[in-house]
Amino acid sequence: MALIVQKYGGTSVANTDRIKNVAQRVASYHAKGDQVIVVVSAMGGVTDRLIGLANEIMPIPTDREMDMLLATGEQTTIALTAMALHTLNVSAVSLTGAQAGIVTDGVHTKAKIRNITPSQVHSMLDAGNVVIVAGFQGQTTEGNITTLGRGGSDLTAIAIASAVKADLCQIYTDVDGVYTTDPRLVSTAKKLDEISYDEMLELASSGAKVMQSRSVEFAKKFGVPFEVRSSLNQNPGTLVKEETANMENVVVRGVSLDKNQAKVTLVGVPDRPGVAAKIFKALSDAAVNVDMIVQNVGHGSNPTTDLSFTVERTDLAKSQQVIAALNSEIGFTEVVSQEEMGKLSVVGVGMKSHSGIAAKLFDVLSAQNVNIDMISTSEIKISVVVALTQAEDALKAAHDAFIA
Amino acid sequence: MALIVQKYGGTSVANTDRIKNVAQRVASYHAKGDQVIVVVSAMGGVTDRLIGLANEIMPIPTDREMDMLLATGEQTTIALTAMALHTLNVSAVSLTGAQAGIVTDGVHTKAKIRNITPSQVHSMLDAGNVVIVAGFQGQTTEGNITTLGRGGSDLTAIAIASAVKADLCQIYTDVDGVYTTDPRLVSTAKKLDEISYDEMLELASSGAKVMQSRSVEFAKKFGVPFEVRSSLNQNPGTLVKEETANMENVVVRGVSLDKNQAKVTLVGVPDRPGVAAKIFKALSDAAVNVDMIVQNVGHGSNPTTDLSFTVERTDLAKSQQVIAALNSEIGFTEVVSQEEMGKLSVVGVGMKSHSGIAAKLFDVLSAQNVNIDMISTSEIKISVVVALTQAEDALKAAHDAFIA
Repeated sequence: MALIVQKYGGTSVANTDRIKNVAQRVASYHAKGDQVIVVVSAMGGVTDRLIGLANEIMPIPTDREMDMLLATGEQTTIALTAMALHTLNVSAVSLTGAQAGIVTDGVHTKAKIRNITPSQVHSMLDAGNVVIVAGFQGQTTEGNITTLGRGGSDLTAIAIASAVKADLCQIYTDVDGVYTTDPRLVSTAKKLDEISYDEMLELASSGAKVMQSRSVEFAKKFGVPFEVRSSLNQNPGTLVKEETANMENVVVRGVSLDKNQAKVTLVGVPDRPGVAAKIFKALSDAAVNVDMIVQNVGHGSNPTTDLSFTVERTDLAKSQQVIAALNSEIGFTEVVSQEEMGKLSVVGVGMKSHSGIAAKLFDVLSAQNVNIDMISTSEIKISVVVALTQAEDALKAAHDAFIA
Repeated sequence: MALIVQKYGGTSVANTDRIKNVAQRVASYHAKGDQVIVVVSAMGGVTDRLIGLANEIMPIPTDREMDMLLATGEQTTIALTAMALHTLNVSAVSLTGAQAGIVTDGVHTKAKIRNITPSQVHSMLDAGNVVIVAGFQGQTTEGNITTLGRGGSDLTAIAIASAVKADLCQIYTDVDGVYTTDPRLVSTAKKLDEISYDEMLELASSGAKVMQSRSVEFAKKFGVPFEVRSSLNQNPGTLVKEETANMENVVVRGVSLDKNQAKVTLVGVPDRPGVAAKIFKALSDAAVNVDMIVQNVGHGSNPTTDLSFTVERTDLAKSQQVIAALNSEIGFTEVVSQEEMGKLSVVGVGMKSHSGIAAKLFDVLSAQNVNIDMISTSEIKISVVVALTQAEDALKAAHDAFIA
């Protein structure tokens, strides 16, 4: 008998038929004698409908009331899921985030979980119930309803798994698990049996968005292993867990491609202290998330340099505005933007103990005539920025070379 | 400065435009310096949509989960109403029934309010907020969400008005108030300025359904005067309150017609003790609500009698089944049903001190050639059952005679 937390996202509970399927799966675990806590999201489309209603009233709804409104989405799902279990003669009770003892800070619409008091959850489990908990929501110590922001239901599941010391936390989604690369782009992509938190985080930040990084970070911080698997079949998924020694035997765990990159180059920037700081402070103030930065070394008595950085493509226009506004103060020659860039990343904890991965990557890309525009590395990742026109070919070549 | 509770029903908050209108009205009271507590129902149609979802999963949804589900309806409205006030620069906070301190018993889907701890409501009012409370819902002492059943939002408003000792409780609806009779049937119907709880209860039970009886009973029990008025205009409504001495000067307050009556007559029932008890016990066990009962006196050495009673028309088929099943045991001659009956009632506290009202009513109906089938009286009401074909003419004649 195990204590299992299962999380089902919006597509897994999109309508009452899907909810019945979820109930079937939960019931099969319950029938084996497992204690099951189910965390559910709002039914697909419900959150957007609620946001639409709010926007009919005000363009930027007030945060506290937005949380009050959005929390109804998951509350609807928990009730329906409990009913679906009742039709299968499984005892089940639903709990809102507040009832499940999820206490957050007071930052409405993106609250952080402070602690969980799962006494109600435990007593209901002990009475033989499946416990259905509303994901994405909690309450402050003052009793105000809060929501956790994007990916909040994953976070609820992992936090509850941590609080109740669950034997297993399963994140059900519409993919079979975490793949060596995007199977839509590379047909030889393989599902991974396991992956470390850090590898998962690097892949997520490189465009492989199975889960929001904050949930993985939370799981890592509190040492909660979890399985990402599909709610549409019975296939085993991918176990995400603390790095183990034998994980390093696999040098490259995955290869990812982020196709939403753009590159900005400032040509002829005066090479003096404080200039770069000024530029990136201004971008940060404008809420532009800068990823890679490359600066050449200046030469001569009045040196200038070229400064390049990448941003999400949607932030390009804003970046250009910010930079243009700085020109009178800093004085650079010109700004060159490349809108269509991709970032290819090779990730693996084995890279810590294996050398030559970067060289091999450059070699592979060179053989494909792919021009590398920028390079950045971490202990377990090498990323290169390439033209989007060559990005998918580059991804296939790298996957062939390192994994397939 | 007054402390006012305002309740808006489903049609008054049916869409975001209506909610904005409600906010305008609330803001106008707030601008005068009044403290306002707003109780809202689910947006029109929402409750039915939620019930539909539940029924997709199970025909008779489990009560606890039904409450969890239905409570989202009012929670949605409170959030949107608070937002609508924010767009008018009025400070407003929403509270679920649980957050507002409404404690109920544990009878899910038709819970009774046990007590209200309005500390949260008070502290939010004192901070200058309009407080928006979800109607129709509360929680048990164990923290389970409950709903109050039909007319529950009215009950919430009146119970809160009682708990906070409000100066005024306004029930906003889609009619201008309580009328001397149904204005759709009698063009000379007049809106009443005031009416006693007892008169309101007698009219409600006679077919004039402005509010559920239980809310009026609750208001009477706790001495909460309230005003029924329209959310569509600025007209003053009808004040419902404890009977005062001068109310008795008006002999007849209102005349009502319940068109959904049916009559069942058992012919040749053995006139011995226990027979009537058996019949009405069986009907009660089948959840048939019997209204009037008339029994003739038996004659002779082996006396039989005729027994007539009225039920809601929708209960007629069930009543006939129940009666048919009893025949072998009781042995009556035959059963005659009249499906199309109406009940006309004349109501007024002044009838306590004025005699001759019944005689005058019979006189008026006789002049219209209306045949009276059954009669029942209470201290402040006379009801007669007539054929539905004659009922509306009878209503007009009675209204002309007693009121217009």
